[in-house]
Amino acid sequence: MTEAMLLRPIGVLSTPWRTIKDCPRNGRQPDPAPQCRATLLPEYHAGLLGIEGLSHLILLYWLGPAVDPEMQFTPPFSDRPRGLFATRGPKRPNPIGLSVVAFDGLAAPGVLKIRYLDCLDGTPLLDIKPYLKSTDCEPESDMGWLAAHATKRA
Amino acid sequence: MTEAMLLRPIGVLSTPWRTIKDCPRNGRQPDPAPQCRATLLPEYHAGLLGIEGLSHLILLYWLGPAVDPEMQFTPPFSDRPRGLFATRGPKRPNPIGLSVVAFDGLAAPGVLKIRYLDCLDGTPLLDIKPYLKSTDCEPESDMGWLAAHATKRA
Repeated sequence: MTEAMLLRPIGVLSTPWRTIKDCPRNGRQPDPAPQCRATLLPEYHAGLLGIEGLSHLILLYWLGPAVDPEMQFTPPFSDRPRGLFATRGPKRPNPIGLSVVAFDGLAAPGVLKIRYLDCLDGTPLLDIKPYLKSTDCEPESDMGWLAAHATKRA
Repeated sequence: MTEAMLLRPIGVLSTPWRTIKDCPRNGRQPDPAPQCRATLLPEYHAGLLGIEGLSHLILLYWLGPAVDPEMQFTPPFSDRPRGLFATRGPKRPNPIGLSVVAFDGLAAPGVLKIRYLDCLDGTPLLDIKPYLKSTDCEPESDMGWLAAHATKRA
Protein backbone atom coordinates (compact mmCIF):
# COMPACT_ATOMS: atom_id res chain seq x y z
CA MET A 1 0.00 0.00 0.00
CA THR A 2 1.62 3.22 -1.12
CA GLU A 3 0.76 6.45 0.66
CA ALA A 4 -1.60 8.95 -0.97
CA MET A 5 0.28 11.97 -2.28
CA LEU A 6 -1.97 14.57 -0.74
CA LEU A 7 -1.06 18.25 -0.56
CA ARG A 8 -2.07 20.91 1.95
CA PRO A 9 -2.11 24.66 1.35
CA ILE A 10 0.51 26.48 3.42
CA GLY A 11 -0.88 29.89 2.51
CA VAL A 12 -2.33 31.93 -0.32
CA LEU A 13 -1.04 34.14 -3.15
CA SER A 14 -2.39 37.63 -3.78
CA THR A 15 -2.10 38.93 -7.36
CA PRO A 16 -3.94 41.54 -9.46
CA TRP A 17 -5.58 38.87 -11.67
CA ARG A 18 -9.14 37.75 -10.99
CA THR A 19 -9.82 35.63 -14.10
CA ILE A 20 -7.67 33.25 -16.13
CA LYS A 21 -8.09 35.56 -19.12
CA ASP A 22 -6.46 38.41 -17.15
CA CYS A 23 -3.36 36.41 -16.19
CA PRO A 24 -0.16 37.23 -18.10
CA ARG A 25 1.58 34.49 -20.08
CA ASN A 26 4.31 34.49 -17.46
CA GLY A 27 5.37 36.63 -14.55
CA ARG A 28 7.97 38.53 -16.58
CA GLN A 29 5.52 39.84 -19.16
CA PRO A 30 4.01 42.75 -17.19
CA ASP A 31 6.45 45.69 -17.17
CA PRO A 32 6.70 46.89 -14.49
CA ALA A 33 5.86 43.65 -12.69
CA PRO A 34 3.17 44.34 -10.08
CA GLN A 35 3.83 43.74 -6.40
CA CYS A 36 2.24 40.47 -5.27
CA ARG A 37 2.09 38.79 -1.89
CA ALA A 38 2.42 35.33 -0.38
CA THR A 39 0.66 35.03 2.97
CA LEU A 40 1.58 32.01 5.08
CA LEU A 41 -0.75 30.34 7.56
CA PRO A 42 0.37 31.11 11.14
CA GLU A 43 1.72 27.62 11.84
CA TYR A 44 4.32 28.09 9.08
CA HIS A 45 5.65 31.56 10.00
CA ALA A 46 8.60 30.09 11.92
CA GLY A 47 9.76 28.43 8.70
CA LEU A 48 10.84 31.82 7.33
CA LEU A 49 13.78 32.23 9.71
CA GLY A 50 16.85 33.22 7.69
CA ILE A 51 14.99 33.92 4.46
CA GLU A 52 15.61 37.69 4.54
CA GLY A 53 19.02 37.56 2.82
CA LEU A 54 17.68 35.77 -0.25
CA SER A 55 16.89 37.93 -3.28
CA HIS A 56 14.88 35.29 -5.17
CA LEU A 57 12.63 32.38 -4.25
CA ILE A 58 10.93 29.50 -6.03
CA LEU A 59 7.22 29.26 -5.31
CA LEU A 60 5.10 26.19 -5.96
CA TYR A 61 1.33 26.61 -6.07
CA TRP A 62 -1.83 24.73 -7.02
CA LEU A 63 -3.23 25.34 -10.49
CA GLY A 64 -6.37 23.27 -9.92
CA PRO A 65 -9.11 22.35 -10.21
CA ALA A 66 -7.47 19.29 -11.73
CA VAL A 67 -8.73 18.44 -15.22
CA ASP A 68 -8.03 15.53 -17.53
CA PRO A 69 -4.86 16.77 -19.20
CA GLU A 70 -4.44 16.67 -22.96
CA MET A 71 -0.99 15.34 -23.75
CA GLN A 72 -0.69 17.56 -26.83
CA PHE A 73 -2.17 20.96 -27.59
CA THR A 74 -1.40 24.06 -29.63
CA PRO A 75 -0.29 26.94 -27.37
CA PRO A 76 -1.63 30.39 -28.39
CA PHE A 77 1.76 31.44 -29.76
CA SER A 78 2.58 28.17 -31.54
CA ASP A 79 1.76 27.11 -35.10
CA ARG A 80 1.51 23.41 -34.27
CA PRO A 81 0.73 21.04 -31.42
CA ARG A 82 3.30 20.62 -28.66
CA GLY A 83 3.71 18.02 -25.97
CA LEU A 84 2.41 19.16 -22.60
CA PHE A 85 5.80 18.53 -20.95
CA ALA A 86 7.46 20.80 -23.54
CA THR A 87 5.22 23.66 -22.32
CA ARG A 88 4.45 25.42 -19.05
CA GLY A 89 0.69 25.18 -19.68
CA PRO A 90 -1.46 24.76 -16.56
CA LYS A 91 -3.50 21.64 -17.47
CA ARG A 92 -1.00 19.08 -16.22
CA PRO A 93 -1.45 15.63 -14.65
CA ASN A 94 -0.26 17.28 -11.43
CA PRO A 95 -1.34 20.94 -11.74
CA ILE A 96 1.56 22.47 -9.81
CA GLY A 97 2.68 25.91 -10.93
CA LEU A 98 6.25 27.14 -10.45
CA SER A 99 7.58 30.69 -10.51
CA VAL A 100 11.01 32.10 -9.81
CA VAL A 101 10.14 35.35 -8.02
CA ALA A 102 11.98 38.37 -6.70
CA PHE A 103 11.68 38.61 -2.91
CA ASP A 104 11.27 42.18 -1.64
CA GLY A 105 11.07 41.43 2.08
CA LEU A 106 8.29 40.94 4.60
CA ALA A 107 5.29 43.28 4.72
CA ALA A 108 4.28 41.74 8.09
CA PRO A 109 5.07 38.47 9.89
CA GLY A 110 4.35 35.68 7.42
CA VAL A 111 3.57 38.05 4.52
CA LEU A 112 6.15 38.06 1.71
CA LYS A 113 6.36 40.83 -0.89
CA ILE A 114 7.17 39.26 -4.26
CA ARG A 115 7.25 40.02 -7.98
CA TYR A 116 6.92 37.88 -11.14
CA LEU A 117 3.83 35.81 -10.40
CA ASP A 118 1.39 35.01 -13.21
CA CYS A 119 -1.38 33.18 -11.37
CA LEU A 120 -4.90 33.97 -10.17
CA ASP A 121 -5.52 35.95 -7.02
CA GLY A 122 -6.27 33.47 -4.23
CA THR A 123 -4.09 30.66 -5.61
CA PRO A 124 -3.17 28.12 -2.88
CA LEU A 125 0.53 28.22 -2.00
CA LEU A 126 2.28 24.84 -1.66
CA ASP A 127 5.95 25.57 -1.02
CA ILE A 128 8.63 28.25 -0.78
CA LYS A 129 12.19 27.26 -1.69
CA PRO A 130 15.34 29.38 -1.76
CA TYR A 131 16.48 30.11 -5.33
CA LEU A 132 20.09 28.92 -5.57
CA LYS A 133 22.07 30.13 -8.54
CA SER A 134 24.58 27.35 -7.81
CA THR A 135 22.03 24.70 -8.83
CA ASP A 136 19.06 26.53 -10.45
CA CYS A 137 20.72 28.90 -12.91
CA GLU A 138 21.50 27.83 -16.49
CA PRO A 139 22.26 30.96 -18.53
CA GLU A 140 23.65 28.91 -21.44
CA SER A 141 20.61 26.65 -21.68
CA ASP A 142 18.71 26.10 -24.92
CA MET A 143 14.96 26.69 -24.78
CA GLY A 144 14.29 24.62 -27.90
CA TRP A 145 11.04 25.47 -29.68
CA LEU A 146 10.27 28.06 -26.99
CA ALA A 147 13.36 30.17 -27.81
CA ALA A 148 11.47 32.05 -30.53
CA HIS A 149 8.75 32.96 -28.03
CA ALA A 150 10.90 33.99 -25.07
CA THR A 151 9.84 36.94 -22.95
CA LYS A 152 12.49 39.65 -23.26
CA ARG A 153 14.32 40.55 -20.06
CA ALA A 154 15.22 44.10 -19.13
CA MET B 1 -16.13 22.27 -0.49
CA THR B 2 -12.68 22.69 -1.95
CA GLU B 3 -11.16 19.91 -4.02
CA ALA B 4 -8.54 17.60 -2.53
CA MET B 5 -5.08 18.38 -3.87
CA LEU B 6 -4.15 14.83 -4.77
CA LEU B 7 -1.13 13.95 -6.90
CA ARG B 8 -0.53 11.01 -9.20
CA PRO B 9 2.85 9.63 -10.26
CA ILE B 10 3.53 10.16 -13.97
CA GLY B 11 6.62 7.98 -13.90
CA VAL B 12 9.67 7.09 -11.87
CA LEU B 13 13.24 8.34 -11.47
CA SER B 14 16.25 6.05 -11.66
CA THR B 15 19.37 7.19 -9.78
CA PRO B 16 22.43 5.44 -8.28
CA TRP B 17 21.29 6.11 -4.68
CA ARG B 18 19.50 3.41 -2.71
CA THR B 19 19.46 5.01 0.75
CA ILE B 20 18.97 8.58 1.97
CA LYS B 21 22.48 8.47 3.41
CA ASP B 22 23.91 7.81 -0.06
CA CYS B 23 22.15 10.78 -1.70
CA PRO B 24 24.33 13.80 -2.49
CA ARG B 25 23.46 17.17 -0.93
CA ASN B 26 22.35 18.33 -4.35
CA GLY B 27 22.59 17.13 -7.93
CA ARG B 28 25.65 19.26 -8.68
CA GLN B 29 27.85 17.75 -5.98
CA PRO B 30 28.90 14.50 -7.71
CA ASP B 31 31.60 15.23 -10.30
CA PRO B 32 31.09 13.88 -12.84
CA ALA B 33 27.33 13.82 -12.37
CA PRO B 34 26.03 10.30 -13.01
CA GLN B 35 23.56 9.60 -15.77
CA CYS B 36 20.04 9.23 -14.36
CA ARG B 37 16.73 8.44 -16.02
CA ALA B 38 13.13 9.54 -15.89
CA THR B 39 10.75 6.89 -17.19
CA LEU B 40 7.22 8.05 -18.00
CA LEU B 41 4.14 5.86 -17.79
CA PRO B 42 2.91 4.99 -21.31
CA GLU B 43 -0.15 7.28 -21.17
CA TYR B 44 2.17 10.30 -20.85
CA HIS B 45 4.63 9.56 -23.65
CA ALA B 46 2.77 11.80 -26.10
CA GLY B 47 3.41 14.75 -23.78
CA LEU B 48 7.09 14.75 -24.77
CA LEU B 49 6.48 16.00 -28.33
CA GLY B 50 8.84 18.91 -29.00
CA ILE B 51 10.99 18.39 -25.90
CA GLU B 52 14.09 17.28 -27.85
CA GLY B 53 15.42 20.81 -28.48
CA LEU B 54 15.52 21.71 -24.80
CA SER B 55 18.88 21.39 -23.05
CA HIS B 56 17.52 21.62 -19.49
CA LEU B 57 14.33 20.64 -17.70
CA ILE B 58 12.76 21.19 -14.29
CA LEU B 59 11.65 17.99 -12.61
CA LEU B 60 9.23 17.81 -9.70
CA TYR B 61 9.11 14.61 -7.66
CA TRP B 62 7.68 13.22 -4.44
CA LEU B 63 9.94 13.23 -1.38
CA GLY B 64 7.53 11.33 0.84
CA PRO B 65 6.54 9.59 2.92
CA ALA B 66 5.16 12.82 4.34
CA VAL B 67 6.26 13.56 7.90
CA ASP B 68 5.29 16.28 10.34
CA PRO B 69 7.67 19.01 9.25
CA GLU B 70 9.79 20.91 11.76
CA MET B 71 9.63 24.60 10.92
CA GLN B 72 13.21 25.16 12.07
CA PHE B 73 16.20 22.83 12.08
CA THR B 74 19.97 22.98 11.86
CA PRO B 75 21.19 21.76 8.45
CA PRO B 76 24.39 19.63 8.54
CA PHE B 77 26.49 22.51 7.19
CA SER B 78 24.95 25.27 9.32
CA ASP B 79 25.99 26.50 12.76
CA ARG B 80 22.47 27.51 13.80
CA PRO B 81 18.81 26.71 13.17
CA ARG B 82 17.27 27.87 9.89
CA GLY B 83 13.70 28.20 8.77
CA LEU B 84 12.55 25.31 6.62
CA PHE B 85 11.58 27.66 3.78
CA ALA B 86 15.10 29.09 3.78
CA THR B 87 16.42 25.58 3.01
CA ARG B 88 15.91 22.89 0.38
CA GLY B 89 15.54 20.20 3.06
CA PRO B 90 13.14 17.35 2.21
CA LYS B 91 10.86 17.37 5.28
CA ARG B 92 8.40 19.97 4.00
CA PRO B 93 4.65 20.40 4.51
CA ASN B 94 4.33 19.39 0.86
CA PRO B 95 7.34 17.12 0.21
CA ILE B 96 7.89 18.06 -3.42
CA GLY B 97 11.48 17.98 -4.64
CA LEU B 98 12.70 20.16 -7.50
CA SER B 99 15.80 19.78 -9.66
CA VAL B 100 17.03 21.69 -12.67
CA VAL B 101 18.53 18.90 -14.78
CA ALA B 102 20.49 18.59 -17.99
CA PHE B 103 18.51 16.71 -20.64
CA ASP B 104 20.62 14.37 -22.76
CA GLY B 105 17.89 13.02 -25.03
CA LEU B 106 15.67 9.94 -25.06
CA ALA B 107 17.08 6.48 -24.41
CA ALA B 108 13.80 4.95 -25.62
CA PRO B 109 10.24 6.23 -26.04
CA GLY B 110 9.27 7.83 -22.73
CA VAL B 111 12.72 7.36 -21.17
CA LEU B 112 14.68 10.59 -20.60
CA LYS B 113 18.43 10.64 -19.98
CA ILE B 114 19.18 13.32 -17.39
CA ARG B 115 21.91 14.57 -15.06
CA TYR B 116 21.88 16.49 -11.74
CA LEU B 117 19.38 14.52 -9.70
CA ASP B 118 19.98 14.03 -5.98
CA CYS B 119 17.06 11.80 -4.97
CA LEU B 120 16.55 8.13 -4.17
CA ASP B 121 16.29 5.51 -6.88
CA GLY B 122 12.60 4.81 -7.46
CA THR B 123 11.39 8.33 -6.56
CA PRO B 124 7.91 9.03 -8.02
CA LEU B 125 8.01 11.65 -10.79
CA LEU B 126 5.30 14.35 -10.66
CA ASP B 127 6.05 16.78 -13.48
CA ILE B 128 8.46 17.73 -16.25
CA LYS B 129 8.67 21.40 -17.22
CA PRO B 130 10.86 23.10 -19.81
CA TYR B 131 13.62 25.16 -18.17
CA LEU B 132 13.29 28.68 -19.57
CA LYS B 133 16.23 31.00 -19.05
CA SER B 134 13.91 33.90 -19.86
CA THR B 135 11.99 33.35 -16.61
CA ASP B 136 13.97 30.84 -14.51
CA CYS B 137 17.52 32.18 -14.66
CA GLU B 138 18.80 34.70 -12.08
CA PRO B 139 22.60 34.85 -12.31
CA GLU B 140 22.77 38.00 -10.16
CA SER B 141 20.63 36.58 -7.37
CA ASP B 142 21.76 36.58 -3.75
CA MET B 143 21.64 33.22 -1.96
CA GLY B 144 21.62 34.81 1.50
CA TRP B 145 22.87 32.54 4.28
CA LEU B 146 23.35 29.74 1.73
CA ALA B 147 25.96 31.69 -0.26
CA ALA B 148 28.76 30.47 2.00
CA HIS B 149 27.73 26.87 1.38
CA ALA B 150 27.18 26.98 -2.38
CA THR B 151 28.22 24.03 -4.51
CA LYS B 152 30.98 25.14 -6.86
CA ARG B 153 30.18 24.94 -10.57
CA ALA B 154 32.68 23.78 -13.15
